[in-house]
Amino acid sequence: MKRKIAIFDSTLRDGAQAEGISFSLKDKIKIVAKLDNIGVAYIEAGNPGSNKKDADFFAHLKQNPGDRPKHAKLVAFGSTRRKGVKPEDDKNIQNLLDAGTETVCVFGKASRFQVTEILKTDCAENLEMIRDTVNFLRARGLGVIFDAEHFFDGYKEDPAYAMECLSAAGAADCLVLCDTKGGAFPDEIYDTVKKVVSVFKTPVGIHCHNDCGMAVANSVMAAKAGAAHIQGTFTGFGERCGNTNLSAVIPNLQLKRSYRCIPENNMVNLRETALTISEIANVSLDDRSPYVGASAFAHKGGMHIDGVQKRPESFEHIEPSLVGNDRRLLISEVAGRSTVLSAIQRVSPDITRDAPETENVIAQLKALENEGYQFEAAESSFDLRIRKLLGKYSPKFQLENFKTIGESAGAGEHSAQAMIKVIVDGKAEITAAEGNGPVNALDRALRKALEIFYPQLGDVHLTDYKVRVLDGQGATAAKVRVLIESTDGVRQWTTVGVSHDIIEASWIALVDSIEYKLIRDGEMA
Amino acid sequence: MKRKIAIFDSTLRDGAQAEGISFSLKDKIKIVAKLDNIGVAYIEAGNPGSNKKDADFFAHLKQNPGDRPKHAKLVAFGSTRRKGVKPEDDKNIQNLLDAGTETVCVFGKASRFQVTEILKTDCAENLEMIRDTVNFLRARGLGVIFDAEHFFDGYKEDPAYAMECLSAAGAADCLVLCDTKGGAFPDEIYDTVKKVVSVFKTPVGIHCHNDCGMAVANSVMAAKAGAAHIQGTFTGFGERCGNTNLSAVIPNLQLKRSYRCIPENNMVNLRETALTISEIANVSLDDRSPYVGASAFAHKGGMHIDGVQKRPESFEHIEPSLVGNDRRLLISEVAGRSTVLSAIQRVSPDITRDAPETENVIAQLKALENEGYQFEAAESSFDLRIRKLLGKYSPKFQLENFKTIGESAGAGEHSAQAMIKVIVDGKAEITAAEGNGPVNALDRALRKALEIFYPQLGDVHLTDYKVRVLDGQGATAAKVRVLIESTDGVRQWTTVGVSHDIIEASWIALVDSIEYKLIRDGEMA
Repeated sequence: MKRKIAIFDSTLRDGAQAEGISFSLKDKIKIVAKLDNIGVAYIEAGNPGSNKKDADFFAHLKQNPGDRPKHAKLVAFGSTRRKGVKPEDDKNIQNLLDAGTETVCVFGKASRFQVTEILKTDCAENLEMIRDTVNFLRARGLGVIFDAEHFFDGYKEDPAYAMECLSAAGAADCLVLCDTKGGAFPDEIYDTVKKVVSVFKTPVGIHCHNDCGMAVANSVMAAKAGAAHIQGTFTGFGERCGNTNLSAVIPNLQLKRSYRCIPENNMVNLRETALTISEIANVSLDDRSPYVGASAFAHKGGMHIDGVQKRPESFEHIEPSLVGNDRRLLISEVAGRSTVLSAIQRVSPDITRDAPETENVIAQLKALENEGYQFEAAESSFDLRIRKLLGKYSPKFQLENFKTIGESAGAGEHSAQAMIKVIVDGKAEITAAEGNGPVNALDRALRKALEIFYPQLGDVHLTDYKVRVLDGQGATAAKVRVLIESTDGVRQWTTVGVSHDIIEASWIALVDSIEYKLIRDGEMA
Repeated sequence: MKRKIAIFDSTLRDGAQAEGISFSLKDKIKIVAKLDNIGVAYIEAGNPGSNKKDADFFAHLKQNPGDRPKHAKLVAFGSTRRKGVKPEDDKNIQNLLDAGTETVCVFGKASRFQVTEILKTDCAENLEMIRDTVNFLRARGLGVIFDAEHFFDGYKEDPAYAMECLSAAGAADCLVLCDTKGGAFPDEIYDTVKKVVSVFKTPVGIHCHNDCGMAVANSVMAAKAGAAHIQGTFTGFGERCGNTNLSAVIPNLQLKRSYRCIPENNMVNLRETALTISEIANVSLDDRSPYVGASAFAHKGGMHIDGVQKRPESFEHIEPSLVGNDRRLLISEVAGRSTVLSAIQRVSPDITRDAPETENVIAQLKALENEGYQFEAAESSFDLRIRKLLGKYSPKFQLENFKTIGESAGAGEHSAQAMIKVIVDGKAEITAAEGNGPVNALDRALRKALEIFYPQLGDVHLTDYKVRVLDGQGATAAKVRVLIESTDGVRQWTTVGVSHDIIEASWIALVDSIEYKLIRDGEMA
């Protein structure tokens, strides 16, 4: 029998307190839908009393029921009443009610230091503030989650007072113990949660921060001690070092211990959900993210690759497909010959491990890596390089020259054009295009010129463009690596270019993208 | 009395197995020096048997004693002898000896599954491989650290056999228990390490991976159970999801529990060491890294900022300066009025919280954030915007127009020029410059034109240039945000520009950089 854990996602509230994060209304609607689909129990969508943007979002959800979650409970977040004010007269509490959710999460201080030094009130009054607020909201028929802020620090200062704060919130549906500063250790979390669970009948929850790099472990240990509700953000971002990373906690508990956090069938959507939320938040999902990152099942060391090829479980703690991720064997000098060889043999099956061609490809690969190239994320460029090195490539077009022009006539007026001349089968084509900036103009001009000869290029478009400055010290003269992701609606491929000039680096990756498309089409025909 | 923990850094070995990481010889020399300065006990510098680059590095260190660590022990890594081969005849072991280090780290399998399915040998032979190798290396007078690979999985399969593997390595100086697949939990690590420590007199070490997001917690729990040696990589990168992040483990144990990992005086260099190693590795240090990240003590939520202003310990688990980090109060819509107000009051002390100017600045800030601007990392641009909005800014120059030209005449030949016309005090100046790409050319042309009027601009140079694609879906037509970091040798400042055109975005940030310099100089005069 699996123990049930209620997953409470705060991406839209605590997540929005992360440096560099700012959600538009549209972003929020998309994130609510994603979280609802993966099956979290609660979606905390904002603090309507603290900022108007959040209040506007709740108003939007009231007017547009189609944008509300279908399964998860929507939660509005706010503080306990202010001192000396009745709940019914408190503006923040009014805002909470106005949000129109069935469940609210209210936070109150559970630390003597915080009460006297930060709230500037006395400990008895703080207890009344908690009690009044929880009781008032319960009496209105709302589900109430109580976030006991600074609980673990408070418990260390004065355990009796910290427990009194929980008692004051006794009418709540869940008492959530918060490690607000993120300073607690897993053993301490375990002992304290166990104590609280033994005293209170109300379900206990946990809310951790990652300031010591232990939020996931702390949440796992809290579950072991009896917590039945875990707060965090789906990809881990939040104030300072972030909140508990739910995309790690969920599979930890559900795949490796006998808890049920989300519906079994949804586990395969874990990676896609994390990726999409990151994209909406406009932060790249860390490749090294447990379970969901692009590198989570990427093997580079020669012995690891060898082991995984024999038995995947030799170097993988779970089967990647369980969370919708993939195994990847990386192309790199550390990978050893066998990875490079298998790439070579895809092009020329007869070339052996010790052939001079293999030697040559490895040497070239090394030289390119020294220049700043990386093929791990750009296997199509790697494939092309191998074909070229093995003489298995006949150019589809030749560049005669190109020119890009960027012009600014003062405030805000800006234009970019590119001119290009290419030769295909002895026939020259010169053309020009405009674009948002010189790279975009060049991209358009190149396609325009080549589509005359290769109409199938009309299906290709770029889906991602990434610029990485390789040597920040050189500032605007630094080397850049450009990664371009392309699709023709059926396949997707990534190519890379490196140069001191961002336009040239982009050009190299663009040309690879088009050449790869033409070669693959040729092979299909 | 503080318990001593030997910190073993494997950035150059396990770290090099991370996706996207590749160190040059020069990189390695710099990293060894950094690690030595911070005071780790061991620096594992490569696997000379598995790749030539690593063997070359050890050869370099033999020939250049000045590049060897002064305090830390240098370690070469390698496997136990192959089956059926004597240690003295084994090529890998010969490579280990050739590396010329005083200490070696050898790994052997401590799991029945790994022995039979991956090594393809029998369990008795594996024990002999471990015993022979450790004894042989000890007999040569080397310090020997034994990495018991897959120990925790092996212990779950067959605890007796896993323990026999450790016994076989009994002559080693340290028995390191490895969670090679990164799948173990903190409670399990604690129990198992405790058991091993109770059985063996030899010091016990721990080596974790972050596949469950718990490597730091697992290492901390291992220390609690009696481990006296912790392996990891300084910033946490490594195969798949990475290794134990030492820059989190060290302060966790040393600042919060009574262990001594590095000399007390070096703790203030923690952030700088992590930053430098990341830069050398050419990965940006995650802003959210515990203790050392740029956001680790950055406060954005209004209540947090209010709390920290009253008492920093209200929302900080340690004093940031202990690890060489800084407190930052972020400028953002979530921050609430008080952060914006204090920025306004730096320019115009008389403007109040409720003044229409404050309203206007907040509205503008919001509009710019919607466009993709972020001022959290570009406070100089924010300061300039405020001056402009408050009418406290008189332009130092006017752009009449500029033009950038990028040209390619085919393979490899590429050039970029910029032409610019500016007006200062009614006098026009037109000039041109070449550069590595259009942005660099524009940067040079602008300075060249303005230095005639403002010679102090000769001291300014750019120290970093970052490009962030804001909406990958638009590919080369996507919006970009450019951050430029400048210095005049005394101060450092960062400015930001956003546009669909990378050149325009760079231009906006460049102009801000120069205007900021001129304004600040004016105020100093």
